[in-house]
Parts: sequence; structure tokens; C-alpha cells
Amino acid sequence: MNALSDLQATLDPSRKSWVESANDSTNDFSIQNLPFGIFSDKNNDAHRVGVAIGDEIVDLAALQAAGLLKVQSKADVFARDTLNDFISLGRDAWRSVRIQLSNLLARETATLRDDAALRLKALVRQSDAQLHLPVQIPGYTDFYSSKEHATNVGSMFRDPKNALLPNWSEMPIGYNGRASSVVVSGTPVRRPNGQLKLPDQERPMFGACRKLDIELETGFVIGGGNVLGEPIACADAEAHIFGMVLLNDWSARDIQQWEYVPLGPFNAKTFATTISPWIVTLDALEPFRVEQPAQEPQPLAYLRHDGKHAFDISLEVTLRPKTAKQATTISRTNFKHMYWTMAQQLAHHTVSGCNTRVGDLMGSGTISGPTADSCGSLLESTWNGKNPLELKEGGTRGFIEDGDELTLAGWCQGDGYRVGFGTCVGEILPARK
Amino acid sequence: MNALSDLQATLDPSRKSWVESANDSTNDFSIQNLPFGIFSDKNNDAHRVGVAIGDEIVDLAALQAAGLLKVQSKADVFARDTLNDFISLGRDAWRSVRIQLSNLLARETATLRDDAALRLKALVRQSDAQLHLPVQIPGYTDFYSSKEHATNVGSMFRDPKNALLPNWSEMPIGYNGRASSVVVSGTPVRRPNGQLKLPDQERPMFGACRKLDIELETGFVIGGGNVLGEPIACADAEAHIFGMVLLNDWSARDIQQWEYVPLGPFNAKTFATTISPWIVTLDALEPFRVEQPAQEPQPLAYLRHDGKHAFDISLEVTLRPKTAKQATTISRTNFKHMYWTMAQQLAHHTVSGCNTRVGDLMGSGTISGPTADSCGSLLESTWNGKNPLELKEGGTRGFIEDGDELTLAGWCQGDGYRVGFGTCVGEILPARK
Repeated sequence: MNALSDLQATLDPSRKSWVESANDSTNDFSIQNLPFGIFSDKNNDAHRVGVAIGDEIVDLAALQAAGLLKVQSKADVFARDTLNDFISLGRDAWRSVRIQLSNLLARETATLRDDAALRLKALVRQSDAQLHLPVQIPGYTDFYSSKEHATNVGSMFRDPKNALLPNWSEMPIGYNGRASSVVVSGTPVRRPNGQLKLPDQERPMFGACRKLDIELETGFVIGGGNVLGEPIACADAEAHIFGMVLLNDWSARDIQQWEYVPLGPFNAKTFATTISPWIVTLDALEPFRVEQPAQEPQPLAYLRHDGKHAFDISLEVTLRPKTAKQATTISRTNFKHMYWTMAQQLAHHTVSGCNTRVGDLMGSGTISGPTADSCGSLLESTWNGKNPLELKEGGTRGFIEDGDELTLAGWCQGDGYRVGFGTCVGEILPARK
Repeated sequence: MNALSDLQATLDPSRKSWVESANDSTNDFSIQNLPFGIFSDKNNDAHRVGVAIGDEIVDLAALQAAGLLKVQSKADVFARDTLNDFISLGRDAWRSVRIQLSNLLARETATLRDDAALRLKALVRQSDAQLHLPVQIPGYTDFYSSKEHATNVGSMFRDPKNALLPNWSEMPIGYNGRASSVVVSGTPVRRPNGQLKLPDQERPMFGACRKLDIELETGFVIGGGNVLGEPIACADAEAHIFGMVLLNDWSARDIQQWEYVPLGPFNAKTFATTISPWIVTLDALEPFRVEQPAQEPQPLAYLRHDGKHAFDISLEVTLRPKTAKQATTISRTNFKHMYWTMAQQLAHHTVSGCNTRVGDLMGSGTISGPTADSCGSLLESTWNGKNPLELKEGGTRGFIEDGDELTLAGWCQGDGYRVGFGTCVGEILPARK
């Protein structure tokens, strides 16, 4: 077991790194962050586990080979193309590695700082690296937990006076997503074809989606699963979470509107979901816990937890047309607005006995704030295309056009440092002919 | 490449096996069948690939070790705990193994028949074996392709005059299922807890499901996936299918009714899905192709295919209460009634660009025939519990009670032989307190 004081020390805002770029208060990857990912680079095309620090990546496989990183039973879990084996070691192991890395990268620690040969092996510039999908994802579930988002969508497609369905306030509504098409940030996304039902036509037609949209979400990654038939209690749920990513749940609104009754969205979502490459651990997010919104009515007992279970994560979406130099910010919001917490989502997911597994990805649902400029989808901010957004450069947008590059960003702002997620980027390619 | 005549010979109705039990015209596992599964036994607890023949299992790992089974590049794919590596070798390899096994097990072939020592190693009685989940399932999708089932459900919960929603006749409606909780036949299933909304209560309560149901389905297993962004054409789709299983999509009707709007069923389904242990290959089903029902309106071009794409598979469900000796048959129907074909389901699944992977499982949707005794769910046959079924022994049933054992069976009846699926069994345990 790790001493709590050692874990606490990794969160000390005054801790600085000898990797100077990490000390910039606007760099996402401070020494307080230490997010995990999978990378390769020009000199070594093996996919392996890395941790972001400032503008660099620490190669954990290299550190372990050099004897600078101990894991239980000397498990060989870093020279791997996914994080699953490392995550499977359990929370003590994650924390032990976090503590060791924090100490090794701290300004005052000479071991790696003053060993030029080892630094050459163990540090790779992010600009020289390629980032890969960080986990093999056995299951992907997406929730619908922003009250503002659910209210907007309900007002638009059902009844503004009864925008929220009665079940929404009683449970974190969720649905199974498609894990196979989760891709890492930077992967181009092809506009989907599918069935479109035009209002003036009796039958649907086949064609390219005309209402392609983003959904600004975060996702959490299961770090410890549960056995079939044995639910995870709400109070224990956070211990099962390894960390969080940014998630863009690309959505084909026209395909969705025609197909979704009565079994939910399918082709409208399964063509791609993009996640950010770095998984920010729940430990790193600890200082940014805040009170969740008040819940009225009080949830059923299995959905109750004491304490603070929301997190103050600033979120932003930008859109840059292919020919434009400048991107336009199209949304600014915060994860703390979410009505249902991650702990409640996981408790609800498993209450029927459903099992979860290491690497499972759970999307938050679109994160919309209370104002028009804080909507997490174009569907909402343009009100289904009726009020197009004015871009700084490249005209207006009701929905996404071919060549548009969409970027999600997210970060927690500490006192003089950031715990950030980096970006989650996707460029839209034209539909297949 | 295998000669077509060799493949054709494996389907010859007159071919008999020296495993005499296989020649019984009511035994599911004739020499024409040769379904693949994963098993272990008392003498060898290693999970390995087997093929059912009569009352026996042929151990493919043992056959390969003895030099009696050749696969490309001598790939070691049989001493494995899933079929995925074997399936990944591709259709030529499946067919080559089928041809070799058919020849080896044919009555006139002495090689294994007359080698007592090798028979002892390579044949295991099914009654001495334990069967395991045959594939690692990266993704599970469930369709809704029986017109009778969709009409029944639509009549019950929406409007009998407009029972089918307008999109139903235009596409094989499907949704993402939960792969983690797919279990093999014989695994007990715990009655789920969840949110129930009683009609006379303003708010939901938490409790054990009161309307636990089966869904009689088949499933198909992907044998060759597709790359993200590259759809599978309807005409090519069957070449991507390795084979079929029986599938029981256990459903908690009361949980489902409260949760499913607007994103589809979730906790009502994710607690368990049971599949039969033997995968019957599409090659073995070839003689049982029949014309699919006429489709009106004619589907959009991407959903069209020439020829016969339905299969004549007799299906049956029995229910046996814990204390009863006799089971009661509660449904008899046939897979050939399905409106949408497997090929159309797979073409639709991928038309948006969604990728599929080896081992993906696709459920047919509840298979209901045109009469009351051919319904694939108790929801339909008891009309939501209103007209309970009379059991031979053990009273009546509106829905499933604790201790009830539900068994699906399915087979194609050839001239003097069967190509059967065996059974898909689950006993219901009381809900967790």
C-alpha cells in the first residue's frame, strides 16, 4: 500500500518539474497531472505506455527497463500496445507508479534529470510522437446526463412544456454504444451514408448525412470491473474508475431522427466516436472535486452518495474550416453542470447485475451549460440548423461541413498549474460515393 | 482453395459416420453438421476447440497434434479458449477443416475409426464435457426483424391500427447490446433488480423484476470483419458470416417499459444474454436455404439481394419449473418467418461505415410466427401476462418464476439427418437481496 502522504504530495500545487515546459500554468500536462497513454515515435515504432509531462512524453517501458520504475511482481505491462494490462494491476499499482513518476520528474530529483543518456531514451517530444488508442475497449456505454442537453432536445423534438421525460430525473439514462468504432484523436472521420427521411417525401432515401454534428462529452475508463450479478454500490463506484478522457460522440442527426424509434440511435452514432489520447487519472482530478447540482426528487437509495462527486473541468469546442487559418470557438462549458455523476452512472449501469470490464468506456452524454454559447452540440446551439453560427473565418454553420476540423479541449485550472486533457480532434472527410 | 465438389460432398445426405450416434435422424449433430465449440473435460481441463459429432466431441487440438488435421501455416489455433483465432484464418480455412473432418469421420475412413489409442485422445463424450462460450465477443448487436413480433409489441404498447412504425419496413432496426454479459448455455441467470414504475405510483420503486421474459432468437457470428468506413455490400454479406447460434435475449419487461424512452432498452437487457455453445456454420446450413418473405415496399438498393437468404430452422422453447419433471413446450416457430435477412442486417449495420470484427454477435430479434403458439416471448403469448399459459406441470405462467428452466432448441431437418443447434438453457435464480 502507498502512504496517503506520498499520494498527497503528487498533488502539491507548489511541486515543479525539471521538464520546464510542465511548469507553464497553461500547459495541460503539469507534474500534478501525469496522464497515461500509448505512443510510438520515429525512432521506435513499438507502441508503448507513456505519461505526458509538459511538451514531453516519459516512456514507462524505458524507465522500467532502466530499473527506475517498480511495479508489483515486476509485471511487464508497459511494453504493450494498450493500457489494459497496467490498469488490471489495480489502484495500488496506478498510485504507486504515479508517486514514483512524480518523484522522478520533480525538479529536485537528479536521477533522470542528470542522466543525459537515459533521458535520451526515456523522454520523447510530443511533437515527434504518434498517439494511439490508449485502451482496448471491451464495451462502450453512453449516458445522457446533462439536464440542459436533455431539456433542449426534448423541447426541440417533443414538447417544450414537458421537455424532460419522467424517467430522466429518476435515473442516469444510458444506452449501449459501439466499441469497435471508437478512434483516437486525429483519426479523420468519414461522413456517414444512411437512410434519410425528408419531410416532403413518403419514403426515405439513401444518401450522405446532411446534419452531421458533434457531441461534446467526457468519458471514464473502468479500472476495476465487477462480476456478473454483483452490482457496484454508488459509494464504491469511483474506486472502479481509472480515469477520464474527452469524447466526441459524432452524430448524424437526420439518420438518428428516422431510425431511433423505438430502440435508440444506431447508424447515427456507430460510424465513429473520437476520444483524446491521454487518460487523466481520477487521482489527478481529486483537487477539482466540487458539489454536484442538487437533485430533485431525491434519487432512489441505490443512486445516493455523500460528498462531492462532480469535477470542475472547463470544456471548449472549436471549429476550423479546411481553408481557414483561424478556428472559431463554438462552445464553452463545464463538466460540473452534469446532473448525474459518474458514480451514479456506474451504479445504475450495474444495478441489474450487468458486469463491467477493465477498459470499458462510459460517455457522459452531451455536456451543455445553461446558455446558448455553452451547448455541447450544434443541434442545440443552432436549434437544428435554424440559427447558423457565424464563424470568424469560413462563413456560417448549421451543421458540420466536409473538411471542417472539430477540436474539443478540457482542463482543470489549479493555482499556477493545469491538469488538462489535451485535445480531441477530428476532421470530416466527404462521404463515400 | 478447396474444390467445390469436396465441400458439396460434406453435405451429401447419404454420408454416414462411424460415430454411430451421429446417424440417428433426430440427433442434432450429424456428419453433415460439424458445428464448432470450445470444451474441456474431467481428464483435461484445458479449454480447446471441438466439433460435435453425434453424442461425441472431436478434439481438434488432439487431431492436429496427431497430424490428422492440416491448417494453413500450421497455425496453432485449436489449443485455444475461444474460436477467434481459428475463425480469423478465413473461410477457406473453415472449409478445409470441414472437408477434412467430414472425410475423417465418414464411415468408410479407417484412419481414426480403427486407431483405438488415438480415438481415446481425440473423442470425448458430450456428457463428460463442459462447454464454454465459443467466441470472445468484441461487439453484440441485436436486431428486431420479425414482423409478427414487432406488430405484436406495437399493438400492445402503441396503436393496434398502426402497430408497425414507419421505419420498420424500410430497414432492419437494430441496437447495440451489451457483450460483457453474453453467457453460454447452462449458466444460471439471476433475476435482475431495477427501477419499476407501478401504474398507481407517482414515482418508481427499486425492486426485483416482476415481468421476466425470454426472447427466442438466433444469432450470427462474424467470421470476417470490415474496416471502418468500408461498408459490406448486401450481396457479399453472407461471406462475412461464420455461423449461427441460438440466443435467448432475456428481458425484464417492467424495467424496459420505464427506461426505454428515448434511447432504447438498457438495464432490461444487459443483465444476461444466453447463447448455445455450438456454432453451426453457414456451410452446414446451405441445404436449408429458402425464399425470404416478400418485402413490400421494395427495400432501398443497398438492402437488395438476389436469391434465397432465409433458412428453414425449426425452433422450440420449453419451460420447466424447478420442482417439475416435465417441461412444457411454450413456443414452436421457424426462423424462415423473419422479414429481414442476416445479409440485410449486416449490410445495414455497416452502411454508415461502422466496422465489425471477428466474433461479433448479431441477434436476429425475437422470432415470432403468425400464431399465438409461435410467439418468441411470453410478453406476446400471454399478452403482457393477461392470458397466462397453462403448464403441463407447475401451474400457469404470465412471466418467468424463480427456478424456472427455459430451453431453446433449433434444428434443420434433412432427409434422414439433422443439422441441429443443440439447446440453449438457463435457469432463473432469485434476485439479489
